[in-house]
Amino acid sequence: MTTVSTLREYIAARRELVDQALGRFLPAPPRSPAVVSEAMRYSLFAGGKRFRPILTLAAADAVASDVRLQEDPQPAMAPDHRVALALPAACAIELIHTYSLVHDDLPAMDNDTLRRGRPTSHVVHGEGMAILAGDGLLTEAFALLAREPADPEGHLAPRVRRTIGLIADAAGAAGMVGGQAVDLEAAGKGPAAFSLEGLRDMHARKTGALIKASALAGAVMAGGTAAAVDAVGRYAAHLGLAFQIVDDVLDVEGATEDLGKTAGKDAAAGKPTYPALVGLERSKALAAEAFEAALDALDGQRMRSSRLEEIARWVVGRTS
Amino acid sequence: MTTVSTLREYIAARRELVDQALGRFLPAPPRSPAVVSEAMRYSLFAGGKRFRPILTLAAADAVASDVRLQEDPQPAMAPDHRVALALPAACAIELIHTYSLVHDDLPAMDNDTLRRGRPTSHVVHGEGMAILAGDGLLTEAFALLAREPADPEGHLAPRVRRTIGLIADAAGAAGMVGGQAVDLEAAGKGPAAFSLEGLRDMHARKTGALIKASALAGAVMAGGTAAAVDAVGRYAAHLGLAFQIVDDVLDVEGATEDLGKTAGKDAAAGKPTYPALVGLERSKALAAEAFEAALDALDGQRMRSSRLEEIARWVVGRTS
Repeated sequence: MTTVSTLREYIAARRELVDQALGRFLPAPPRSPAVVSEAMRYSLFAGGKRFRPILTLAAADAVASDVRLQEDPQPAMAPDHRVALALPAACAIELIHTYSLVHDDLPAMDNDTLRRGRPTSHVVHGEGMAILAGDGLLTEAFALLAREPADPEGHLAPRVRRTIGLIADAAGAAGMVGGQAVDLEAAGKGPAAFSLEGLRDMHARKTGALIKASALAGAVMAGGTAAAVDAVGRYAAHLGLAFQIVDDVLDVEGATEDLGKTAGKDAAAGKPTYPALVGLERSKALAAEAFEAALDALDGQRMRSSRLEEIARWVVGRTS
Repeated sequence: MTTVSTLREYIAARRELVDQALGRFLPAPPRSPAVVSEAMRYSLFAGGKRFRPILTLAAADAVASDVRLQEDPQPAMAPDHRVALALPAACAIELIHTYSLVHDDLPAMDNDTLRRGRPTSHVVHGEGMAILAGDGLLTEAFALLAREPADPEGHLAPRVRRTIGLIADAAGAAGMVGGQAVDLEAAGKGPAAFSLEGLRDMHARKTGALIKASALAGAVMAGGTAAAVDAVGRYAAHLGLAFQIVDDVLDVEGATEDLGKTAGKDAAAGKPTYPALVGLERSKALAAEAFEAALDALDGQRMRSSRLEEIARWVVGRTS
């Protein structure tokens, strides 16, 4: 109970930090026209869980709380300051996640009119403006990474450049956009369109890559050693897989009111899912395996009892 | 005649350099799925003039050819090497320009089915894939800037971070995306939707910002002094305005076969243009003023006879 309650508090505090920073970082009039600024804000403040930015901050926390995980151990740098270096990356990733939802909901893609109980962007702002709001959110992610944290001496610039690269690779044609394209190409062909390996590759791109980048960005921006960054990357790759399988299982077993979207929607749409491919029990076993592998990755790097372990428990135990 | 012929050769050589680099830099299978990689290539190699990347390289050339314009004068660094530092930025800007055309052509935006005589992306690949191809091109621009030029020691990282920032600001909600949003909002309202000041602001965002960023990126990546970078920025702001007015004038006066699109299309669509707002003669006078102001900006920095002057002459003298 204590752990659960503490994690809940941790998540609530981090979510608050991210929400405040997002409000501060977003472009607003007169710098950017009201019409597109408002459309960007509409989707960004729509009740998201902030899972990815919280993961970024948790990875930064894990590195910041142990000098043996830092490539530039500076006793003078308070752990909180080190975590703060990762806050812009956390927000940039949430901007990218949000843009992907806005474009994914478009009539030419999934054609969703509701998300978390609210009308989707194109329903409210029109299709053209929704496309532009998504474009604006994606672009702003990189503008933000170029601007924050401020670094007049240029010491952080190599770290920031690396972070921009790993986020862009995860979001682009080799990652999320590529996964969406494969998913779109397979649409309507039913579960038979994918082997288990093909489904795993599609999800590794579509959702896994950005989840992995979220954790990596936190470890890199907080100054993690090569070994710590590597461990965080392996942890997050397994976590991303577990996250996706749990998503698919919840679509079958979850309650509509918990999910904030219609349960059973994927199955009804003939979407390839883990339960559709290997059944519900085997899906749960695969999620449990991925969870264990995620924890194993943390073992060698003294991060086993960090927030990263708790977050993994949260991901596999969630009901929405 | 000599100058014109030399400029033509210069442009042809730079275009070749950009085309080869784009082919090398673009993601391809198996790193990215074939379906989206091909859609990205389709629009990127569609006969574009490469005006923006050539402008980037010309600004880098101007800085590289005079050590007095360099903040880090290194006699050991050949001018060509200095210009090569700007090549990834030149390509990134062309990726962004191309994505903006793909999204702009979508049914929910301008609904264009032809561009440079070829069917637009959504006609060939479907609307969903065209949206994703645009998203992929935009994201890849930043992945490329994070990756190239290689910089194992991290000396270039502050310069690269600054370049990413100025490109993202120009492309995002404060720049190009914002301009598109204002344009979309005004669609169908006819020329009366804008004052001359409003039209100028819309174009400064929609096309001017990225043209300015193109030149700035070249000057920054080549290591220009603050004064040189500032002069290049002022030059390019005026050049962007001239470019847009000439575009509007050509839509009235140009021949359809030269333009590769239907002349008179803007007027027929009731789009706000300079000729519609202030007439043809006054539009030409405004373009000439902007051209002179662009050259004036170069005066104080010994760049008056550089390729930048020739490119300005090319822009105002073009027929397509």
